[in-house]
Amino acid sequence: MTEAEFIALLRTLPLHRGAAGLRDDAARLGELVLTTDTIVEGVHYLAADAPADVAWKLVAVNLSDLAAKGATPEGVLLNYPLGEDGWDRAFLDGLRVALSDLACPLLGGDTVSLPAGAPRVVSLTAIGRAEAPPVRGRARAGDALFVTGTIGDAGAGLAIARGANGPAALLAAYRRPRPRLVEGRALAPLVDAMMDVSDGLLIDAARMAEASGLIATVDLAAVPLSPAYRTFAGEDRAARIAAATAGDDYELLFAAPADLALPVAATRVGALEAVPSISRHSRVRGEDKGELREVSLILTDGGTRVALPESLGFTHRD
Amino acid sequence: MTEAEFIALLRTLPLHRGAAGLRDDAARLGELVLTTDTIVEGVHYLAADAPADVAWKLVAVNLSDLAAKGATPEGVLLNYPLGEDGWDRAFLDGLRVALSDLACPLLGGDTVSLPAGAPRVVSLTAIGRAEAPPVRGRARAGDALFVTGTIGDAGAGLAIARGANGPAALLAAYRRPRPRLVEGRALAPLVDAMMDVSDGLLIDAARMAEASGLIATVDLAAVPLSPAYRTFAGEDRAARIAAATAGDDYELLFAAPADLALPVAATRVGALEAVPSISRHSRVRGEDKGELREVSLILTDGGTRVALPESLGFTHRD
Repeated sequence: MTEAEFIALLRTLPLHRGAAGLRDDAARLGELVLTTDTIVEGVHYLAADAPADVAWKLVAVNLSDLAAKGATPEGVLLNYPLGEDGWDRAFLDGLRVALSDLACPLLGGDTVSLPAGAPRVVSLTAIGRAEAPPVRGRARAGDALFVTGTIGDAGAGLAIARGANGPAALLAAYRRPRPRLVEGRALAPLVDAMMDVSDGLLIDAARMAEASGLIATVDLAAVPLSPAYRTFAGEDRAARIAAATAGDDYELLFAAPADLALPVAATRVGALEAVPSISRHSRVRGEDKGELREVSLILTDGGTRVALPESLGFTHRD
Repeated sequence: MTEAEFIALLRTLPLHRGAAGLRDDAARLGELVLTTDTIVEGVHYLAADAPADVAWKLVAVNLSDLAAKGATPEGVLLNYPLGEDGWDRAFLDGLRVALSDLACPLLGGDTVSLPAGAPRVVSLTAIGRAEAPPVRGRARAGDALFVTGTIGDAGAGLAIARGANGPAALLAAYRRPRPRLVEGRALAPLVDAMMDVSDGLLIDAARMAEASGLIATVDLAAVPLSPAYRTFAGEDRAARIAAATAGDDYELLFAAPADLALPVAATRVGALEAVPSISRHSRVRGEDKGELREVSLILTDGGTRVALPESLGFTHRD
């Protein structure tokens, strides 16, 4: 069964009101925001990856979900499988750095033993505090679509981690993403919708549009590329599509009125528009199945409509 | 590295105040109580176990930690590895029953894929609400030590699950423990210290004593055995020691004044006493290492002191 099918079954269980139908990235409990992520050796990271990098990324990925809610991290719970001493110690050293740098203390957790040879499975649950967290599904027709930072650096960093030659800055973007906590807090009271870019700019823009009952238009020419990325991959259409579908950016994607005075640096990459009434029925059916239909995303390059790439990003990675 | 050594290292990380030095079973965040548990195929349950039983136990074990805090369950977050369709569906059916019966809705979660052949690793984080949750470490010298329900049934049930002949009631105690949520709420405002019996009555009594800076005395003759347990295992000293060290009971163990009018049915199994000053130094050193020293537990049988068994319960199971 696919993740989407499993989540559809989960929706038939008794759900908390704060689960918002399991359609958002984080749950709400009063002023608290809760999110959890699991990483698996050989799936989300390689056995040869430095344990400290794995720890950093586990924390950063969870806090990025909190950042998208404008939340201030309160604490984390860790589910950890005891294994090889050296790896465990290095992981804890990395965890110490991440929790210190990102100002998020440990609240608790659980340790287990795994059968010999089993891949490590590590979960982290992050809890933050936010007064009025934005959701991904309240973008409005006519909103502009913005993204913080640059896109594609982590995807290039993954290629470098796999052996390609390239700038260390890109590798760092992949291994040590920094959740946009400060930016998230500044943006949260102002935006109509917000989420983090974890699976790819295009797929995440399509998800925001889908959840909001709108169509997103993203212009490839507007996708912000770093100088390091341009050096590594160029800036032609193929390079821009690669950047916009690679994922792991952990930037913030948000919908807001085009004339909003932004409190942080961000790039306008597109817009959100109403769905033509003729396609409304098929769109709703698509959402029910947890699928993303082409109708929720239009891609342009310098204003000219171009075909969607075959993959908009990671859809079943986790 | 052992679990105790790992937890000692975790204590050197930035800790939340609500983590209480990672010395309790649950973390506190305002009026919320948080706990998390991971179960591993082949370690905490057998691959052949019914998925619905695995789901029930995962929920029950977490809610038992909430019960010991006198908490009302608010919701759970699930970290789940997608695998074989039939198993996943049966697990979800069991989860539905557990969440419905125990009145605890789903708040959110995360699904992952595992490499082929990897054992399942499932985590659940439970959140409850409690006004003044008791801790395990505030028992007072002179307190009596009480336990709800009967002890040893689940341990006998495990033997039956492994092939022994015995009453179905014992198997049910092992597979479908019921967290003492109602009892926990009634007891929480009245007791000095409380925890659930997960690893064995003796080791958990020793842990409460250790955390409270006291010595626990447990009288084997007072350990409450069910009629089914007596039929299965007898009631001699060996049978009582087996019951008191088997674990998986998920009853509540609490310290309270001996003359307290109990609001729920419970059995007095012992007492808590001050540590003779001569052994204080070694006791504190033992606690620092996460070990339980003999000094924190005295065992009697009908009032006569008897030697401690080699194992007081599960110490490194998870």
